[in-house]
Amino acid sequence: METAKVAIIGFGTIGSGVARLLLEHRDRIARRAGKKIELVHVVDKDLKRSRNIALPPGVLTSELSDVTNDPEIVAAVELVGGLEPARSIVLELLESGKNIVTANKALLAEHGPELFDRARQLGRTIAFEAAVAGGIPIIASIGECLIANQIESIHAILNGTSNFILSQMEENNTDYASAVAEAQQRGYAEANPAMDVNGSDAAQKLAILAHLAFGARVNWRNIPRTGIDIVDVADMRFAKELGYSIKLLAVAELVPEGLELHVSPTLIRQGTTLAEVRGAYNAVRVVGDAVGRVFYHGLGAGQMPTASAVVADLVNTVAGRTAITFERLNLWSTEGEPRVRLRDAARVPGRFYLRFNVDDRPGVMAEIASILGAHNISIASVIQHEAEEDDASNTVPLIIMTHMSPEGAVADALKTIGQLACVHPGSVRMRVRD
Amino acid sequence: METAKVAIIGFGTIGSGVARLLLEHRDRIARRAGKKIELVHVVDKDLKRSRNIALPPGVLTSELSDVTNDPEIVAAVELVGGLEPARSIVLELLESGKNIVTANKALLAEHGPELFDRARQLGRTIAFEAAVAGGIPIIASIGECLIANQIESIHAILNGTSNFILSQMEENNTDYASAVAEAQQRGYAEANPAMDVNGSDAAQKLAILAHLAFGARVNWRNIPRTGIDIVDVADMRFAKELGYSIKLLAVAELVPEGLELHVSPTLIRQGTTLAEVRGAYNAVRVVGDAVGRVFYHGLGAGQMPTASAVVADLVNTVAGRTAITFERLNLWSTEGEPRVRLRDAARVPGRFYLRFNVDDRPGVMAEIASILGAHNISIASVIQHEAEEDDASNTVPLIIMTHMSPEGAVADALKTIGQLACVHPGSVRMRVRD
Repeated sequence: METAKVAIIGFGTIGSGVARLLLEHRDRIARRAGKKIELVHVVDKDLKRSRNIALPPGVLTSELSDVTNDPEIVAAVELVGGLEPARSIVLELLESGKNIVTANKALLAEHGPELFDRARQLGRTIAFEAAVAGGIPIIASIGECLIANQIESIHAILNGTSNFILSQMEENNTDYASAVAEAQQRGYAEANPAMDVNGSDAAQKLAILAHLAFGARVNWRNIPRTGIDIVDVADMRFAKELGYSIKLLAVAELVPEGLELHVSPTLIRQGTTLAEVRGAYNAVRVVGDAVGRVFYHGLGAGQMPTASAVVADLVNTVAGRTAITFERLNLWSTEGEPRVRLRDAARVPGRFYLRFNVDDRPGVMAEIASILGAHNISIASVIQHEAEEDDASNTVPLIIMTHMSPEGAVADALKTIGQLACVHPGSVRMRVRD
Repeated sequence: METAKVAIIGFGTIGSGVARLLLEHRDRIARRAGKKIELVHVVDKDLKRSRNIALPPGVLTSELSDVTNDPEIVAAVELVGGLEPARSIVLELLESGKNIVTANKALLAEHGPELFDRARQLGRTIAFEAAVAGGIPIIASIGECLIANQIESIHAILNGTSNFILSQMEENNTDYASAVAEAQQRGYAEANPAMDVNGSDAAQKLAILAHLAFGARVNWRNIPRTGIDIVDVADMRFAKELGYSIKLLAVAELVPEGLELHVSPTLIRQGTTLAEVRGAYNAVRVVGDAVGRVFYHGLGAGQMPTASAVVADLVNTVAGRTAITFERLNLWSTEGEPRVRLRDAARVPGRFYLRFNVDDRPGVMAEIASILGAHNISIASVIQHEAEEDDASNTVPLIIMTHMSPEGAVADALKTIGQLACVHPGSVRMRVRD
């Protein structure tokens, strides 16, 4: 049986998971791949730290040149993470003739066009199943399995950390800060969870999916996004009362006016598949014009789910399938592909959940309702409970669900409402999905 | 741009769906495939019947030889259905050098080894994504995306007709016969729905998945199966009362004693993803040792979802990816793959739902309970309602949920219980999944 030599760059959690699969399940993978996959080098600055996998002698090295100078290595897995030095490392590996497998969504969202162009010029490939939704094979699904379809929409929960935090808040009535602490303690959230909870991570993944599904070369920074840090545990209770769960939803939807893209905490009707996604799971709901609605659910991150996707890419790469996807199916070229126009976010209509912190006195509801009316925003339902007895603030939360309204009109109305003397700072606006 | 010539054999519902995608979305598919896919022949005995797609002149023919004699045709889609003449047609097409795409699960479950061996000998390929779970890309997922995993279990709803009938019974309190009639009227069920409702269709699909996931060459007839025709609308109500939905579940599970395979109506705990699968949808839940649990949900049948899967296979075939999967990844060979031992069905433990039709008199419960006890079967819960006032039969349904027990012991106990004078014919036994 032929042998394909490969290397891993970055020996952290995912890197040791990939090494474990390649070493401990060598025979199983060879049998299924039709080739032995031999891990010849693992590159990491830190040669001392103990990992839960013992590498054969001579495999661990601190020198990238051990890989770039070895012409027998056909593929390298980039698991360094972040932008630099990951970008330089990938370019160096491509120049030295290696095919790339990566789980780095930030790198692709930021430098995708540069890296893919360079790979094409050099006749190399980049595979990235692990970069979006971990163990869910969404890249292969959109890029290959659903190729006969015009994709019409993608609704996805792409950030497991945010979903874990929201689930904690919903199920255990935990406040936001405690839920974040719990996520950190369990290893779901980084010490600095900003990119996860502010929607950036989900926006980067959405940019990759939108590129694949709609040929949209969009800078992830231009995707309107709101993080889960605006969600209060009280919103969870009100949402439940109205029949909804709150999830950080990434949306790409093709409408006659263009492609709508956004990431935001969203009230999703209970009982629907997306509303039932709990804990650190991810989910993707794709609608194609032929296939209809397809739904995927699985672990979006973590050592072994991500390693599973990386190893599948490695097998595809050494078996030659990635080359066909990459070069021949021409997925990453915009040539001939009609450019997709992004729709102006302010004009995207939706239903909205609004929470105001208002003085507990007569006339307040009338003032707010008249401003909404002046902006042509119609009210679907209202919740206002009596103030709790031990609440000395003399304010109460007022919840308003709107009918369909353009987001811009709602934002304008909120600005005016925020100037009312009876309305205190900290109003919240979230999308609703029925 | 290069052109690949293809043909369709069988111009029924799916055939016209495939033709529609290839003709109406020619440019879109070419752009994504990197090749024009030209439909040069559609073969069907019936040249007169009107379909919802107009073929270019000269494309429709009644002669298979128009395809086999044309050396430029690289791939043919078999949509004849059934065993013969489908088997002979596929062999003839292979001999004439065509690669095959098929949606015919009966053909693969019955003649898979013969057809795959012949294709390999001739250097041709067979692609069959559309044969299992229609629009859900489960073949590519198990065969390629999850290749790094030892699959541990598959739990699937693979027959949309049965699921539609069960959903009608559950949601509208419709009796079994009316629900079947409704399914026929909507085009979900054939005039003779036997293969759908008796579990054969699901068993054929499960045999294909088990081959792919576990290398198990199992004859689908050897898979223990029970159909949904045993389910009464009363079972739906009792199941709901106990917190369950009833679904026709296909199970493949690797346990230390071997591979457990069966198809049967199963009580599934409400709120779980599988329990929420409604109407003509299919769903597959796969557990892999690295990836964990992955869940797929989509339309399992119907013209365009199936056509979507067929066209994806056609693109993979003309682009050369199928050849790598088929030849190089060696998926369909059992060489070197450890043979999987099927577990004796009688020893497979489970929880069971039992419904007896019993005389409405004292002592009955004690008689039944003592037989269950003698077979070492422990009772988890019991439902017995008072007889309805207008019921003159003087019998009542008695529902018993067991704790974990081997299926064989339960079957033995039921045989003995059936001989009791107080127990009337028509006892029902279903598996329970929590």
